[in-house]
Amino acid sequence: MTSAPLTVIHSRDNAFVKDLRRLAQDSTAYRKQGRVWLEGDHLCSAALQRGVRPVVAVFSESFWPLAPAAYAQAAMKLVVIADALFADISGLESPAPVGFVVDVAAPRGLQTGVATVVLDRVQDAGNVGSILRSASAFGFRQVAALKGSAALWAPKVLRAGMGAHFALDLVEGLEVQDLQALQVPLLVTHVHDGDFLHRAALPWPCAWVLGHEGQGVSPALEERATRRIRIAQPGGEESLNVAAAAAICLHASGATR
Amino acid sequence: MTSAPLTVIHSRDNAFVKDLRRLAQDSTAYRKQGRVWLEGDHLCSAALQRGVRPVVAVFSESFWPLAPAAYAQAAMKLVVIADALFADISGLESPAPVGFVVDVAAPRGLQTGVATVVLDRVQDAGNVGSILRSASAFGFRQVAALKGSAALWAPKVLRAGMGAHFALDLVEGLEVQDLQALQVPLLVTHVHDGDFLHRAALPWPCAWVLGHEGQGVSPALEERATRRIRIAQPGGEESLNVAAAAAICLHASGATR
Repeated sequence: MTSAPLTVIHSRDNAFVKDLRRLAQDSTAYRKQGRVWLEGDHLCSAALQRGVRPVVAVFSESFWPLAPAAYAQAAMKLVVIADALFADISGLESPAPVGFVVDVAAPRGLQTGVATVVLDRVQDAGNVGSILRSASAFGFRQVAALKGSAALWAPKVLRAGMGAHFALDLVEGLEVQDLQALQVPLLVTHVHDGDFLHRAALPWPCAWVLGHEGQGVSPALEERATRRIRIAQPGGEESLNVAAAAAICLHASGATR
Repeated sequence: MTSAPLTVIHSRDNAFVKDLRRLAQDSTAYRKQGRVWLEGDHLCSAALQRGVRPVVAVFSESFWPLAPAAYAQAAMKLVVIADALFADISGLESPAPVGFVVDVAAPRGLQTGVATVVLDRVQDAGNVGSILRSASAFGFRQVAALKGSAALWAPKVLRAGMGAHFALDLVEGLEVQDLQALQVPLLVTHVHDGDFLHRAALPWPCAWVLGHEGQGVSPALEERATRRIRIAQPGGEESLNVAAAAAICLHASGATR
């Protein structure tokens, strides 16, 4: 079935286990280790479908005999961990019995002239993951996260992203002036101002700017925007969830071109 | 400034504090108590903007002298609680220094002929809250949650809903056959089948059905759907986050009519 080497671990003090615990529980540990932890069946399957090759596939002892052959075949190394130890590593309330360790490519700089999503201090991991899924679905190629945004490869963002991370170029830690490199029209949503999205002819490629959950897009960045776009809200709601607004805007740009 | 009676509480064993702790930490306690707990400045403001009148406004002792007059004026009773006790009540990682207790109207039955969002076992509190916000923004009037969906008035859903709860009629605990009462076209999204959303002429009023995060809409409910609608995904993503898909569909129906 597979020739990848198999290691069985029962010790909490094992160095690999310690690294794994950090990856699973510390949202920025990937920056030091250069690898990420994908936990759970859904996320591991999604990664495989994207062509991801895990460095290590990790199984709980009781799940290992039931593990899909595809998981074991895809990985370069296999590790089986005692159930209690696996639960201790996991960052989840209901620990999954399987996970992948995947190398993260060293970030490239921003690419010029490609459809981009800009995250201006978007905080919530679930929102960021959802935005990455929408970006990938609607043909955006890169995500540019300004300083103060959630760590893009954090375990919670990975789970919410359901594999979208592996279909996008992700650049983080940017300053507003770095966005000059994009060289595409910069679009922001505005509550009271701008063309209505459902009537607007939108440029492609473009960059959609999505702002902080409470404060929205920073004034410095709004000044640089090429166009303001308004989402019609006949119900008179004050604001949409940022990932909901993103989905609407990215769909309008990407799905209809 | 206000004539509402003020109570100061320092005891963990106070009956009001015990009830509050349950409301804040148990996602279905509202069903027994008939009231909900809105925690934090953002959510309390949003509720006031919707015309909500809190039964009790609760402040931490150190925040009380700084509390906005509007909060104290709106409430029928004021309670000030020792800071440590407030933190103990809170369900949040960073406890807010203010919250409202609000009566929840006894649920009415489903209304016929109005724009509706149907939740078919949508599980995640953040997703449900985001969907409620989108529903309200795009002119939907009621949300019908089938059995197995997240408790609509749970604290996490309230926080994610940012006041949308108070602009909608919410009915929960429904069975599939109860939806007959809606008497509007039932729309479901489908990955491979149906008219593309951005080209479809959509009926109004209608009911959009949103399914379980992993399993989607149940077969029994899909059979009853009047129309299947497809969201074009040029990026080839397997699926969108359910709240993202909801935002796109509800916007397409509601914003453009």
